[in-house]
Amino acid sequence: MALMTGEQYVESLRKLNLNVYMFGEKIENPVDNPVIRPSMNSVKMTYDLAQMPEYEDLMTTTSTLTGNKINRFGHIHSSTEDLIKKVKMQRLCGQKTAACFQRCVGMDAFNAEYSTTYEIDKAYGTDYHEKFKKYLKYVQENDLTVDGAMTDPKGDRGLSPSKQSDPDLYLRVVERRPDGVVVRGAKAHQTGICNSHEVLVMPTVAMRPEDKDYAISFAVPTDTEGIFMIVGRQSCDSRKLEAGADIDVGNKVFGGVEALTIFDDVFVPNERIFLDGETEFAGMLVERFAGYHRQSYGGCKVGVGDVLIGAAALAADYNGANKASHVKDKLIEMTHLNETLYACGIACSAEGYKTESGNYIIDLLLANVCKQNVTRFPYEIARLAEDIAGGIMVTMPSEKDYRNEKTGPYIEKYLKGIASVPTENRMRILRLIENITLGTAAVGYRTESMHGAGSPQAQRIMIARQGNLGHKKALAKAIARIKE
Amino acid sequence: MALMTGEQYVESLRKLNLNVYMFGEKIENPVDNPVIRPSMNSVKMTYDLAQMPEYEDLMTTTSTLTGNKINRFGHIHSSTEDLIKKVKMQRLCGQKTAACFQRCVGMDAFNAEYSTTYEIDKAYGTDYHEKFKKYLKYVQENDLTVDGAMTDPKGDRGLSPSKQSDPDLYLRVVERRPDGVVVRGAKAHQTGICNSHEVLVMPTVAMRPEDKDYAISFAVPTDTEGIFMIVGRQSCDSRKLEAGADIDVGNKVFGGVEALTIFDDVFVPNERIFLDGETEFAGMLVERFAGYHRQSYGGCKVGVGDVLIGAAALAADYNGANKASHVKDKLIEMTHLNETLYACGIACSAEGYKTESGNYIIDLLLANVCKQNVTRFPYEIARLAEDIAGGIMVTMPSEKDYRNEKTGPYIEKYLKGIASVPTENRMRILRLIENITLGTAAVGYRTESMHGAGSPQAQRIMIARQGNLGHKKALAKAIARIKE
Amino acid sequence: MALMTGEQYVESLRKLNLNVYMFGEKIENPVDNPVIRPSMNSVKMTYDLAQMPEYEDLMTTTSTLTGNKINRFGHIHSSTEDLIKKVKMQRLCGQKTAACFQRCVGMDAFNAEYSTTYEIDKAYGTDYHEKFKKYLKYVQENDLTVDGAMTDPKGDRGLSPSKQSDPDLYLRVVERRPDGVVVRGAKAHQTGICNSHEVLVMPTVAMRPEDKDYAISFAVPTDTEGIFMIVGRQSCDSRKLEAGADIDVGNKVFGGVEALTIFDDVFVPNERIFLDGETEFAGMLVERFAGYHRQSYGGCKVGVGDVLIGAAALAADYNGANKASHVKDKLIEMTHLNETLYACGIACSAEGYKTESGNYIIDLLLANVCKQNVTRFPYEIARLAEDIAGGIMVTMPSEKDYRNEKTGPYIEKYLKGIASVPTENRMRILRLIENITLGTAAVGYRTESMHGAGSPQAQRIMIARQGNLGHKKALAKAIARIKE
Amino acid sequence: MALMTGEQYVESLRKLNLNVYMFGEKIENPVDNPVIRPSMNSVKMTYDLAQMPEYEDLMTTTSTLTGNKINRFGHIHSSTEDLIKKVKMQRLCGQKTAACFQRCVGMDAFNAEYSTTYEIDKAYGTDYHEKFKKYLKYVQENDLTVDGAMTDPKGDRGLSPSKQSDPDLYLRVVERRPDGVVVRGAKAHQTGICNSHEVLVMPTVAMRPEDKDYAISFAVPTDTEGIFMIVGRQSCDSRKLEAGADIDVGNKVFGGVEALTIFDDVFVPNERIFLDGETEFAGMLVERFAGYHRQSYGGCKVGVGDVLIGAAALAADYNGANKASHVKDKLIEMTHLNETLYACGIACSAEGYKTESGNYIIDLLLANVCKQNVTRFPYEIARLAEDIAGGIMVTMPSEKDYRNEKTGPYIEKYLKGIASVPTENRMRILRLIENITLGTAAVGYRTESMHGAGSPQAQRIMIARQGNLGHKKALAKAIARIKE
Repeated sequence: MALMTGEQYVESLRKLNLNVYMFGEKIENPVDNPVIRPSMNSVKMTYDLAQMPEYEDLMTTTSTLTGNKINRFGHIHSSTEDLIKKVKMQRLCGQKTAACFQRCVGMDAFNAEYSTTYEIDKAYGTDYHEKFKKYLKYVQENDLTVDGAMTDPKGDRGLSPSKQSDPDLYLRVVERRPDGVVVRGAKAHQTGICNSHEVLVMPTVAMRPEDKDYAISFAVPTDTEGIFMIVGRQSCDSRKLEAGADIDVGNKVFGGVEALTIFDDVFVPNERIFLDGETEFAGMLVERFAGYHRQSYGGCKVGVGDVLIGAAALAADYNGANKASHVKDKLIEMTHLNETLYACGIACSAEGYKTESGNYIIDLLLANVCKQNVTRFPYEIARLAEDIAGGIMVTMPSEKDYRNEKTGPYIEKYLKGIASVPTENRMRILRLIENITLGTAAVGYRTESMHGAGSPQAQRIMIARQGNLGHKKALAKAIARIKE
Repeated sequence: MALMTGEQYVESLRKLNLNVYMFGEKIENPVDNPVIRPSMNSVKMTYDLAQMPEYEDLMTTTSTLTGNKINRFGHIHSSTEDLIKKVKMQRLCGQKTAACFQRCVGMDAFNAEYSTTYEIDKAYGTDYHEKFKKYLKYVQENDLTVDGAMTDPKGDRGLSPSKQSDPDLYLRVVERRPDGVVVRGAKAHQTGICNSHEVLVMPTVAMRPEDKDYAISFAVPTDTEGIFMIVGRQSCDSRKLEAGADIDVGNKVFGGVEALTIFDDVFVPNERIFLDGETEFAGMLVERFAGYHRQSYGGCKVGVGDVLIGAAALAADYNGANKASHVKDKLIEMTHLNETLYACGIACSAEGYKTESGNYIIDLLLANVCKQNVTRFPYEIARLAEDIAGGIMVTMPSEKDYRNEKTGPYIEKYLKGIASVPTENRMRILRLIENITLGTAAVGYRTESMHGAGSPQAQRIMIARQGNLGHKKALAKAIARIKE
Repeated sequence: MALMTGEQYVESLRKLNLNVYMFGEKIENPVDNPVIRPSMNSVKMTYDLAQMPEYEDLMTTTSTLTGNKINRFGHIHSSTEDLIKKVKMQRLCGQKTAACFQRCVGMDAFNAEYSTTYEIDKAYGTDYHEKFKKYLKYVQENDLTVDGAMTDPKGDRGLSPSKQSDPDLYLRVVERRPDGVVVRGAKAHQTGICNSHEVLVMPTVAMRPEDKDYAISFAVPTDTEGIFMIVGRQSCDSRKLEAGADIDVGNKVFGGVEALTIFDDVFVPNERIFLDGETEFAGMLVERFAGYHRQSYGGCKVGVGDVLIGAAALAADYNGANKASHVKDKLIEMTHLNETLYACGIACSAEGYKTESGNYIIDLLLANVCKQNVTRFPYEIARLAEDIAGGIMVTMPSEKDYRNEKTGPYIEKYLKGIASVPTENRMRILRLIENITLGTAAVGYRTESMHGAGSPQAQRIMIARQGNLGHKKALAKAIARIKE
Repeated sequence: MALMTGEQYVESLRKLNLNVYMFGEKIENPVDNPVIRPSMNSVKMTYDLAQMPEYEDLMTTTSTLTGNKINRFGHIHSSTEDLIKKVKMQRLCGQKTAACFQRCVGMDAFNAEYSTTYEIDKAYGTDYHEKFKKYLKYVQENDLTVDGAMTDPKGDRGLSPSKQSDPDLYLRVVERRPDGVVVRGAKAHQTGICNSHEVLVMPTVAMRPEDKDYAISFAVPTDTEGIFMIVGRQSCDSRKLEAGADIDVGNKVFGGVEALTIFDDVFVPNERIFLDGETEFAGMLVERFAGYHRQSYGGCKVGVGDVLIGAAALAADYNGANKASHVKDKLIEMTHLNETLYACGIACSAEGYKTESGNYIIDLLLANVCKQNVTRFPYEIARLAEDIAGGIMVTMPSEKDYRNEKTGPYIEKYLKGIASVPTENRMRILRLIENITLGTAAVGYRTESMHGAGSPQAQRIMIARQGNLGHKKALAKAIARIKE
């Protein structure tokens, strides 16, 4: 059974015994919680689409480990074509959810672990790679959703892991046993962990020799003892709790939810450890995971951008502004920026290459360029969407006022755009734009575009490293005929 | 009594009998409603500051009508210095509230009405100017807050007022009586109307002869029969309703609230009518009001920007990133952009001139340039603030989780930044940034910056009109020595 | 003999009997003319590189027509890999010349003609495709440089070809004979025509039925009777005429030169006509040629950008500013922008597809997105280069003053940067930056980036057409749950 | 005689015995040299305009030293109105010359020296202020043009003046005599020095105690023994030397010319020394001069921008593209950016204040913000002008080809735009745009906008210093209710 249906995925989550806290309370049933449910629905879409013949080529593939048909989210990329299809799959999922569908973080972690464990083993004679392959087979065969967990809280940004006033501000090994290790710490910003089966932990920065206990990577089920999650507040999150909420939530079905995830002395068995103390490989793992994940944003955010552009175009259709040349021009600009992001996602994939372990990795320079643009263009696309939407997007009365018998008729009358479109449709589109630019989905479309897979400065450092300035200087000297 | 204290202002609002609806219910006591209260507090600040000796010069002045000391928000500008002080007063109020303080819309309407009524009277021998002066004296003497109401719902943007399928989509006279007129329609986006004493209505576009019934301007108390307000939903509005909410609201005390305001056959007595049917003056009134209001944004948004820059700088202080050169550079860029807006606000004021009626108006070209920049730079300032704040701004657990005895200690531990700063302070600053960039205040700092006082394209049309391209062509021909 | 050496190329040009005018005179020997020579050298580089083993894979390939080894500039793309290699070849040539190397315009015309003639024949039963293949075989076998000529003078932009006051403002057939046609008109901006063997003419816009005589495409030798060229003035062109000029020209060896090319009743034999009157295919030919050529800019301009970034980095090395964080950051930004262009070039290639004729064409949406970015980023890269270079780039004394015995020692002394670098090297790098940002090469790096392969608005029209707004609207409706 | 006519100014220059070198030769008669003449003409315009009644109010004023009518370029600003008029005068001169008119650098130096010498005297009991006033009276009474000279060559940017390998890389005192000092060094980028009567030298950076000999400020005639100038090469400079050049130079009459100015052991008498060794005041002098000069750019570059916008608009008129909405929109954007610069120039003036010495200085924060925008917007205005101009701007044949009887008629025919405009007029406008964006005037409009009055990073440092981040943090803490 390498492919679950969406429903089977939902049912499989019910069997987990997660520790989830939100708004000061423990959530007994995360699966049916109205705040978390949309996040689960987004992941469910990755299972549903894999069942549809028209998306089969994008959503599924053949495992390099087993030869079985698997969901592409569990795949080890074996060609540049695979890398390109990954980006297209992500754009599709973004289009279908207008939200973060979360499952790529696991996929990106698999591919980074795959090649890094291979190289550690080569250097140290360890057996991480075989252990990891075994683990991945299990994931593929059971079609699991795995949360790749990287970002530590980091405390004082001016200090390295072992120099923090509290040694737990980076996740670390606190005890070593014959059969495994005990870890303590936290991972911040874990989108989707409340609806994942497993969590695959990686270090968050390159390490120095003294950071040995921090150089740890492993995977455990999300309901392992000692793990608990505190859901993060999103803008407008509580609209999902309002009785009968439909229009006002903007995106009724889909979303993404983050959690601060605490590892409170969690035991990890040896067979699930993929890095332990080889500090000089922490940087490789981070760089490769970040590279894959920076590529990802050239797909998923583009898909959300497609929805936002469509919504802005409808907003203009609905109030009769669609023929104005400046509106048309803004839609062109939004499309141009969105496709530039896609071009970067495709390009870093097409320029990918084979690692020593045999899987394919993206061109790191172009993947960082991709993500750097993602820290800018969605903001401008959002700004243009807000321009086209008009002020009514944020001053429109609530759905309850619209359903109220006294105020409803006035809203119906006065928020009418062109005569042929029902006021409700106009409200729906405006709330969708609000959702992506200011509401729950803005967390994904704005903040995650900014900070996900590393903040802007992290990409700039990589661009400097990968840009080969020395070669460029040599070219300039040749043209200027400088002899030295 | 030309100056009320803040408390007197609050008490004066209790005497109003407003019809306010929100979340499907009628609000019996808007003054103490937790959603509306912050909006009132922002206006209250304009009264409180006027009582403080250190702000006396900015906040108060001498009435040109009575010679009495009045709040500057009720003033008719009598010099370019007055125009400049207006901008500085607005920056101050923005700094003190980090929100829209609403009262400028009345001030800008007063000054536009003052000169326009003078010119209508000159053309038609009407007595609008004297009626308006009498009204304004009443406002000044009672230190009232007046909501200037301009934006009609507008329906199909491709059609003029009288061509809409529903004739009420622009506010209009539906009945004429010997003692006044009856009006019907609505005004959208009315920030602060739920805590204003009066509403001063103006048309929203230039009119053609056939739009005669739409060319109407007047003032009435906000609790006049037939007026009612439906409060607009803002991003994160319901956080203000959460029990014990303090940190999570971001800005506990201040805010701005908009309402769709319905005029359901409202009677307006003759002495309160300042334009009625002189269609060719509708454009002048709109242009002047918009001009003053576009100047305003070069003050108020700059003040909010100051708070946002300060908050971003603190966020960097609190997590130890403040020494990174890229962080410093981003703070410089934010300051640069914010001061550019201020420069535009000051410049259009310094270049102001006397109207025929004797009051001073801003340079219209520069005021439009000012506002056009306001549709861009706050978005970039916000983007940079989100960059500096980090992802934790949107994934941080709720205040209730922080107060909860199980989860609180973990949040305390893992969200710690530098050792010397309490976690709570860090959370407060991050929530403030969230508030301005994504939450209730984003409605003011982003959307209002975009659409308030006219959407971006409206300014571009004015820039084209005021830019004197003919003169520029003549200059170019002279240099290129083109003879014709 | 499918591959010429660079020297053979030069010699082959000597055999041409071109009519070239410049500075009011007829140029008897264009090959050795100091203004034109650098342009020829740039094309020569495309022959020289093809001889070098390290570039063989990029610069040469196997003809799909003959199976012989040919220069890639004459190739019909037979895979997306071919399209990608094209971009890489162009980046390489840009790096080696820091100028326009001109030969892609022919390559892009070949591929557009190849598929368009196929489709015309299919529609009309004509034999253009076979004629074109025969012509192309001749080009490949003789390794010729062919100038693709598209842009007509266009006169009044508000009028179509047949509506112009002078009917010749678009090139047209003025006489029809049994053995061919006679054409009259001009092609503007022909880079490289003064050192090309052949010219391949295409129409410049989509045509309507009444423009039949303007729908003409053909190829003739550049020294055909009736053709003559008037070389365009470039910024700083005459520096190349100064005795002993070396430093001051900035790029001594390479360049690009444009000419207004007049077709003064030129006879075209039937076998060289590839479109004649099939007006509805003019648009397809233009769109495909423009598409390929917009892809090209994602390669060639990136190569020039590499040189400019290298030069700016050297300028900072040479005056000791290279350690300043703002200088490093500007170099990162330049690299980021340059690689974004490259990503677009690669992406539209990787997403290419097979035409009906069997050759490969780029993804048109992404190719237009590519070019649109090229109309922006080189300007910003140039601005940043000028920032790093410092004012001395434009206030530095001439080479003659540097060689002068009175003034030379003072220049040596006072223009010294860091002690270890000779002043002359610093001057050379500054002049190279000047050359690319303000001088002869700015024509290629700025203006050609802006207008080559179509002005910015042309791309925006294509982006609107290719952007599939309807699909985006459908996605938004699904998320917003709008039923119609 | 406090006001010279333009002609008198020209004649006065003939009396100078300047040492000017260019293109490897000594220029015997700079006044009539075709390369330098346009620079002189620009300054001449400042005399000519002062004679015209319509500009009297802007161009002349009453001396605060003598009570006589003087040219405003020699004025000590005695109010914010003076500061505003300065900006307006500069915009006017920019409009009339489309070039750098050079004389502001002296004016800005006068005002910086005026207040700084006052404060030095107060600290040290020196008599610099009186000496400076005496000197200024002489300048005013004789209506002289004074070149303010600040920028030293600076060698290695990583080293302070006294640490350079060659001690002369910053200008310094090499000998002290009873009657004065002897100085050695150079000043780079001296625009207009070849047509100035005097040079007023200032240090270029803040100094430390060990840099005592570098802390020197003084004024001498430009033909003082030991001073000589080497004219800098500009893009397209030699077009001015071409026989009969008119169209091709773009701006036939006006320009600006820079020179590297050598002080080869120049004697300065005591009465002309205004700073000598008071190292801690070097920074004040630099900061104030730079502040005034950064204000200046909010006037002069705006004037040139007016010409460029006008030229672009004409280019569109001349080829019939003027009705396209994208062209109109680009002209609006150019106007918007240009007026934003002007707003900054006006604002820093309106916010000026009185120094201890009694003259008025601009608001330093806003003046730096002004200049920072000048390092960006002219580049974007130029880019948009190049967009509108079309490729023909850089591929158009030379004037000689146009005058040639063979090629002339073809150019006339094929470069025709709309039927009613002579081809020559179109060529003239295109060459003017080329001149400002790529040619001699690009040195002023681009590079000087970037580096004049300090490079971009210099302004950012000042913005950081003047931005009062501490106050902003306090505001944010108050809103976030952080108690410490």
